[in-house]
Amino acid sequence: MKRKSQARNDSQGTSLSSLSLAHGKRARLWRLLYGHGPGNGTLLVLPLDQGLEHGPTDFFPNPKALDTSFQFRLAEEGRYSAIALGIGLADKYMREHAGRVPLILKLNGKTNIPDDAEAVSPAFASVEDAVRLGADAVGYTVYVGSPRQDMEIREFGRVRQECERFGMPLVVWAYPRGRDVEAKGGKGSLYAQDYAARVAEELGADVVKLHEPAADPGSSPEPYRSLREDAAARLRRVVRSAGKVMVLFSGGVKQDDDAAVLRKVRLYMECGATGVMFGRNMWLRDFDGALALTRRVHAILARCPR
Amino acid sequence: MKRKSQARNDSQGTSLSSLSLAHGKRARLWRLLYGHGPGNGTLLVLPLDQGLEHGPTDFFPNPKALDTSFQFRLAEEGRYSAIALGIGLADKYMREHAGRVPLILKLNGKTNIPDDAEAVSPAFASVEDAVRLGADAVGYTVYVGSPRQDMEIREFGRVRQECERFGMPLVVWAYPRGRDVEAKGGKGSLYAQDYAARVAEELGADVVKLHEPAADPGSSPEPYRSLREDAAARLRRVVRSAGKVMVLFSGGVKQDDDAAVLRKVRLYMECGATGVMFGRNMWLRDFDGALALTRRVHAILARCPR
Amino acid sequence: MKRKSQARNDSQGTSLSSLSLAHGKRARLWRLLYGHGPGNGTLLVLPLDQGLEHGPTDFFPNPKALDTSFQFRLAEEGRYSAIALGIGLADKYMREHAGRVPLILKLNGKTNIPDDAEAVSPAFASVEDAVRLGADAVGYTVYVGSPRQDMEIREFGRVRQECERFGMPLVVWAYPRGRDVEAKGGKGSLYAQDYAARVAEELGADVVKLHEPAADPGSSPEPYRSLREDAAARLRRVVRSAGKVMVLFSGGVKQDDDAAVLRKVRLYMECGATGVMFGRNMWLRDFDGALALTRRVHAILARCPR
Amino acid sequence: MKRKSQARNDSQGTSLSSLSLAHGKRARLWRLLYGHGPGNGTLLVLPLDQGLEHGPTDFFPNPKALDTSFQFRLAEEGRYSAIALGIGLADKYMREHAGRVPLILKLNGKTNIPDDAEAVSPAFASVEDAVRLGADAVGYTVYVGSPRQDMEIREFGRVRQECERFGMPLVVWAYPRGRDVEAKGGKGSLYAQDYAARVAEELGADVVKLHEPAADPGSSPEPYRSLREDAAARLRRVVRSAGKVMVLFSGGVKQDDDAAVLRKVRLYMECGATGVMFGRNMWLRDFDGALALTRRVHAILARCPR
Amino acid sequence: MKRKSQARNDSQGTSLSSLSLAHGKRARLWRLLYGHGPGNGTLLVLPLDQGLEHGPTDFFPNPKALDTSFQFRLAEEGRYSAIALGIGLADKYMREHAGRVPLILKLNGKTNIPDDAEAVSPAFASVEDAVRLGADAVGYTVYVGSPRQDMEIREFGRVRQECERFGMPLVVWAYPRGRDVEAKGGKGSLYAQDYAARVAEELGADVVKLHEPAADPGSSPEPYRSLREDAAARLRRVVRSAGKVMVLFSGGVKQDDDAAVLRKVRLYMECGATGVMFGRNMWLRDFDGALALTRRVHAILARCPR
Repeated sequence: MKRKSQARNDSQGTSLSSLSLAHGKRARLWRLLYGHGPGNGTLLVLPLDQGLEHGPTDFFPNPKALDTSFQFRLAEEGRYSAIALGIGLADKYMREHAGRVPLILKLNGKTNIPDDAEAVSPAFASVEDAVRLGADAVGYTVYVGSPRQDMEIREFGRVRQECERFGMPLVVWAYPRGRDVEAKGGKGSLYAQDYAARVAEELGADVVKLHEPAADPGSSPEPYRSLREDAAARLRRVVRSAGKVMVLFSGGVKQDDDAAVLRKVRLYMECGATGVMFGRNMWLRDFDGALALTRRVHAILARCPR
Repeated sequence: MKRKSQARNDSQGTSLSSLSLAHGKRARLWRLLYGHGPGNGTLLVLPLDQGLEHGPTDFFPNPKALDTSFQFRLAEEGRYSAIALGIGLADKYMREHAGRVPLILKLNGKTNIPDDAEAVSPAFASVEDAVRLGADAVGYTVYVGSPRQDMEIREFGRVRQECERFGMPLVVWAYPRGRDVEAKGGKGSLYAQDYAARVAEELGADVVKLHEPAADPGSSPEPYRSLREDAAARLRRVVRSAGKVMVLFSGGVKQDDDAAVLRKVRLYMECGATGVMFGRNMWLRDFDGALALTRRVHAILARCPR
Repeated sequence: MKRKSQARNDSQGTSLSSLSLAHGKRARLWRLLYGHGPGNGTLLVLPLDQGLEHGPTDFFPNPKALDTSFQFRLAEEGRYSAIALGIGLADKYMREHAGRVPLILKLNGKTNIPDDAEAVSPAFASVEDAVRLGADAVGYTVYVGSPRQDMEIREFGRVRQECERFGMPLVVWAYPRGRDVEAKGGKGSLYAQDYAARVAEELGADVVKLHEPAADPGSSPEPYRSLREDAAARLRRVVRSAGKVMVLFSGGVKQDDDAAVLRKVRLYMECGATGVMFGRNMWLRDFDGALALTRRVHAILARCPR
Repeated sequence: MKRKSQARNDSQGTSLSSLSLAHGKRARLWRLLYGHGPGNGTLLVLPLDQGLEHGPTDFFPNPKALDTSFQFRLAEEGRYSAIALGIGLADKYMREHAGRVPLILKLNGKTNIPDDAEAVSPAFASVEDAVRLGADAVGYTVYVGSPRQDMEIREFGRVRQECERFGMPLVVWAYPRGRDVEAKGGKGSLYAQDYAARVAEELGADVVKLHEPAADPGSSPEPYRSLREDAAARLRRVVRSAGKVMVLFSGGVKQDDDAAVLRKVRLYMECGATGVMFGRNMWLRDFDGALALTRRVHAILARCPR
Repeated sequence: MKRKSQARNDSQGTSLSSLSLAHGKRARLWRLLYGHGPGNGTLLVLPLDQGLEHGPTDFFPNPKALDTSFQFRLAEEGRYSAIALGIGLADKYMREHAGRVPLILKLNGKTNIPDDAEAVSPAFASVEDAVRLGADAVGYTVYVGSPRQDMEIREFGRVRQECERFGMPLVVWAYPRGRDVEAKGGKGSLYAQDYAARVAEELGADVVKLHEPAADPGSSPEPYRSLREDAAARLRRVVRSAGKVMVLFSGGVKQDDDAAVLRKVRLYMECGATGVMFGRNMWLRDFDGALALTRRVHAILARCPR
């Protein structure tokens, strides 16, 4: 298949050896990329911040997932590269998993009760909290393009400096958001995701979490509006815009068709992603189903060493 | 009775032994759960912040309660697990009760003179104040879903970090509030209380104070809007959403029917609550009446060891 | 007279011996209550912040009062418990009065050029300034119920903590203010003053300055709107709501009838006030007139030991 | 002439010996009042912040003044008490004048591109910068009566405290400003200038720069609206409202009639000013003309020792 | 040619020897002016912040430029005085170029997704970051005239003070911006650029980046509106308004006509610029074309020693 081989040549993802890193950051990134998970330079991350971001609503399809032990067990038995969650859940549930599952401590968040027209994601934990908990990275949401971006960017800058100080890798949830993003094609468009990828790179992320970009609607700015690219081309574009920042694609809302999920993973990896961060598409299945699907994702990642 | 035994199996509340805690926090929580009050892992807390939150209006039914000695005496003679109040009242009235009644120092608050469309609760005392006063916990209100949630969450995060530093348990008054909460079913709905419970868990509370959730009106989001659950099911749901955070239910406005109050307590405990935080339903009665009712609450809690 | 004796029994004001206080705070409060002024536990305070709060307008009836030496001389010769003013006036005028007249350093203030719909009173001096000047207390205005109360309360909390640190008594000007106060009966109503008294207590004031409460208009909330209490009952009510916080009543705008002023003082003291803080009603008279009136106030206070 | 002698008796300006001052502040003020300039306790200050406040527009009448060497030379050859300008100009141009011309480092400023309805003047240099540059005072603009006065006053308070710490005199540009000032008679009215003078005194200025007050229009508040005072009476009034704060009057827009300028200086000094701060009225003339006018101002100041 | 020689006499640009500088700042500026680049006191800077400021859109004409190695190679092989970019790009790409290409670390930035009516550029890196990376200067955008200028100016002031502390030269991107700038002739007008130049000087820049000023439209304020100056006169005017601050002119959007680009460079240098900062006009060409054009710019700069 032409697309596949082309992807292999063009965009194999960023590898640790190509990066200049301080010792602490290198050690922690090594643990995530080679010491756990697939172990071949790819990343498989299990995120759990939906309870804060969306409320318990998200757990209705699988009430057992309300108990964070579910996700910790899944992360450990499924050999995830890391679990990504906030201080409250980490503090209460990681005891028996400490050391066995790397932790990405998510530092900021908000509810979705007010709308996102002027979204801002406040920090409620610090890099020092992450150090104390033995985390191997911190996670931080930046609402790219929000009218309150000055607050977002300034706070992000302080977090990044703390990361330098402690040798802590920084995973950015780069989420286009706000009324101007909506007016310019929406948060899911290639324009928005591509811009978000570049912002993550220029602001100093080590890893960026993005959504699969959709084709741009008529309200997107040029030249995006006139692009006619397929899904793979769009994915490769945002991976390219992220430069040396490792890209994880998210799963978004749960999909019932396992094969469709796996096709997505394959596509993302062919297009240069370093890995995937799938939450609801994993922990909204029953435990055994989630584990089985996880194993099939492992099989795909195993074929894409970075 | 079926409901009772089911509750026993499903949701017996969180116990101290199931939690990973730093020494200081464990010591203080132990004092609250076993060293005072019912002494069996349940909590009976007497709150007094209504003078700030609602004004002297609340005291008209029992003017003697305006003198905080009333509540301190009630807390001591009624063997409450703790009294929860602000720095001004603690400083002026706890002298002869120091050591005999544990203190939960409430750190933030506001008046209800402006409306709650953009509610925010500013801190006027610190965790260090709590340490100086010998408190066994601090209390903090978070207005879940307020348009100014970024300010709330950020300030909460700083308080939580101070709590880590000093080994101080953190009791969160998780109150849905603000114009968007009102537009989505109101602050008392199951949707709102359930979300608040989860927010408290993810942000890192040790104990959360919630209100008994009401059935959702048509303006609540799905799937809540379509749920048809009885009071017990709703209570169990929010307890579950709080995870390992201990849940206290509040009494709300005063109810004259003692039997109704006790039925509530019984129901809350059956549904997994760790205890209750009843203010006006206690101190708006004459002293002997309040003491008698307190004893009957003790009798209920005694049957629900955690 | 029945009212008088009743007042004596009910509300004799707060005395120093009934309070738990750190050494420094006790020493400074002792100086104000017994070392200067009436010397019997009552307080007679001469405030001078009207130039900042209202502009030079207030001084037109007595231009000599524009020179702060006037008030310092009056405070010393009239044996006031303290003079209360800001850093600029204290720095420039207290030299020859240092030690002879205790100083209450007023830390915050604002002009009345913008209206008070969203009033906030910014600090322009610190508790450390007060220590450096040898002050025996600091003064702080809290605009109770302002839409920007979160800023007011948070800043107040920091000042209170500095007061703890330095053993500095804290006198709160508890002023209901802002558009919501106006919509609920106005700043002078019993509802508003009663709420302000309680707020001062819960936030941690040592002394509170209030205005004599007026009967509530129809726009006040219940139960205030329906109360039918006379002036003395209203005064006793706010004194009660202040708890162990010592209450000073202010004089407000100048009254030309000396006898009326003295009747007010007598009434306030009978209703449980610890003293009065009269500015314009004193320093807008010619020096000898002010001194004579001061002496007659002393005579009243002398009969009300606390 | 009656007016003159009256002025001599009433308001001779503040002298250094009448003030209580910390050593550092006294030393620096002495340098300004007696060590440089007229040397008799009066002040002649050359300000240069118009480039920031109004843009290069102000320099069109005399393009040579765009080169700050012009003002430094004028200040030195004209024996000014001090030159007042910001960090950028001081850093780049004071080398050969250091020590010969005292520096008043202006700490805050803004452009006039947005209008002044909610004016606020942000600090871009610190008292520490002033110390490092060997300045003898700092300058600070306070927009009296601006809707954002809380920000102004709070920041001013921090600067004043730094001045205490370093013994640095504080010169306040007390400028009434903002939409409420405009609604109440405008920034140039006696009401506004008189209020500004008092604000400077209460906030803790050492020296205040004011504009000559104009008669109040019908929109000014009473009693100002009904005053019928001549220019001298108005000037004396604001000098009196400034108390022990030394008053400098500004020159405002350039006036071509030298005699008119000198009449103003004479009037200001007769009315109690400590000196004048003339910028455009000096440096918008050719160098020799500016120097000649400066000398004639010196002659006036020489007759008004303080 | 008359214009040329006139330019030589009037405005030869600022030279290092004419400035009073702390050792660290002089050493770093020397490196930029004489140790690298043209080496004759002129500056040729390659900026790369367009990915953050405008999104990946800017790179469509030359996708290879998305990989920051392209610009680093160009900067090194083209012997630029420095490359100017943010922390993310510097961290990830400067390894093999460290020491060979001086770095100007751009500290602040924002996306262009929200419009610029109230533009503010938040800092996401610090002067300390610049020191750690071995940078020879920092870059900082000030949106001159924005409604939020108080935030801009205050943050700038803090950065400038850090620069003093570390001996770090400060390059200001002085960009007129915001709704009031648009109402007064627009960001490109001589009025706006001339004001921006002066603001940079008064705030304390060492180097300022400006755009070539356009003739003022009818909405510009006087006297600009009535000026009838040619391009060279306008350029000389803004260079003069910048005083001793070295001026770099930017290239703006890409121009395909090489000769036109070179004519611009020649004109800027004749009018007193210290150099140029051309980004898109360089790195949007293919590598060899960019290098060739760079060499021709070098030839021009070589004839304009400062």
